[in-house]
Amino acid sequence: MNQIHRPARAYEYETDGQEIYRQSFGMIRDEARARLSALPDDVTDVAVRIVHAAGDVAVADQIAAHPDVVRAARSALRSGAPILADSNMVAHGVTRRRLPADNEVICLLRDDRVPALAREWQTTRSAAAVSLWADRLEGAVVAVGNAPTALFHLLEMLEDPSLGTPRPAAIVGMPVGFVGSAESKTALAEHELPEGGQVPWIVVHGRRGGSAMAAAALNALAHESELA
Amino acid sequence: MNQIHRPARAYEYETDGQEIYRQSFGMIRDEARARLSALPDDVTDVAVRIVHAAGDVAVADQIAAHPDVVRAARSALRSGAPILADSNMVAHGVTRRRLPADNEVICLLRDDRVPALAREWQTTRSAAAVSLWADRLEGAVVAVGNAPTALFHLLEMLEDPSLGTPRPAAIVGMPVGFVGSAESKTALAEHELPEGGQVPWIVVHGRRGGSAMAAAALNALAHESELA
Repeated sequence: MNQIHRPARAYEYETDGQEIYRQSFGMIRDEARARLSALPDDVTDVAVRIVHAAGDVAVADQIAAHPDVVRAARSALRSGAPILADSNMVAHGVTRRRLPADNEVICLLRDDRVPALAREWQTTRSAAAVSLWADRLEGAVVAVGNAPTALFHLLEMLEDPSLGTPRPAAIVGMPVGFVGSAESKTALAEHELPEGGQVPWIVVHGRRGGSAMAAAALNALAHESELA
Repeated sequence: MNQIHRPARAYEYETDGQEIYRQSFGMIRDEARARLSALPDDVTDVAVRIVHAAGDVAVADQIAAHPDVVRAARSALRSGAPILADSNMVAHGVTRRRLPADNEVICLLRDDRVPALAREWQTTRSAAAVSLWADRLEGAVVAVGNAPTALFHLLEMLEDPSLGTPRPAAIVGMPVGFVGSAESKTALAEHELPEGGQVPWIVVHGRRGGSAMAAAALNALAHESELA
């Protein structure tokens, strides 16, 4: 490859990555102050990162969380728990150097068994792939950033007493879309396990969500540092 | 692995992927009718997919496009042009089976040369990685779905007559964020090449954007089919 030359500067813009983060998080904390202060203290930093990924402070109004979710997810990740994601975009949005124990990040959407299971069960491949998580689910941190059907399917696994599905440590519930998305997040916020209680959760209510917000939540749960 | 059992259905939700697409796109066309009808005809389908990825019809108001962008991008991809993306999330959001010529999807953010270039040039790694696109840029489809600095840097490469940077076929400009994002997209919409004219572009103006919207735009440009 030939020598690479920097182009002449033609625009005024901030080029220091750490400074961009600092300014961005400052603007978010200022503009979303009211809503952020209504969230549990340890959820605030996670919410700031979700808003950052969305590029929209209005998303702060849609964030809700179980009071134990940050503690549970951080503790699980420090202990080496895997992250299970419903989409490859979510998995690739996790910043590896933020992970406290070089944790595995797993998406099984392209597993060979998925197409046949989806056909047999007449459901989406995203939902069928969630059933393949079962033997890694114990104490894991789960993130749904794409398919409402994946979140509904996960809740059905956890709520069906005949399956004995292991309990994850925490669920990031941020599927996106116009059909079933809002309902799936309401279901997560209201679910009850057969033995009582809930798996701690964090959601962006309504139609919005998506892989960028889910990955941002994971990155905030993985490490307390705000930068990079 | 043990036999996998489908959990008992506990919620009412649509499980047919194609039906979810159909209903979603119908809702978007209905709710965003006014704005969609103001866009060039061939941009409408791309806009519907961007709105779908955002889970929010308000995004339709922020979409703007050069009149040739859809024709230019489709023609380039059919001819086998690569897709160059600023982030791994964008690259992993491209649905490979929609690509008309098994096109390469390239992200150079993790290239070994990036950290040193970023330090030398005092810019972000995202921007430095764009300079490494140069020998693949001719006729390519470019997507910026994360870093405003990457989009500014690309424009500076194209506008610096001393570099002789090859021309891409089209630019998907959808960086997200609070610092520089809106400005970078205004710059793209208003840029002028040294020889006159523009590289055809499509943007989501303002702070919003992101890897999911950029990947959705690429998936719509790659193939005319609305489904999957």
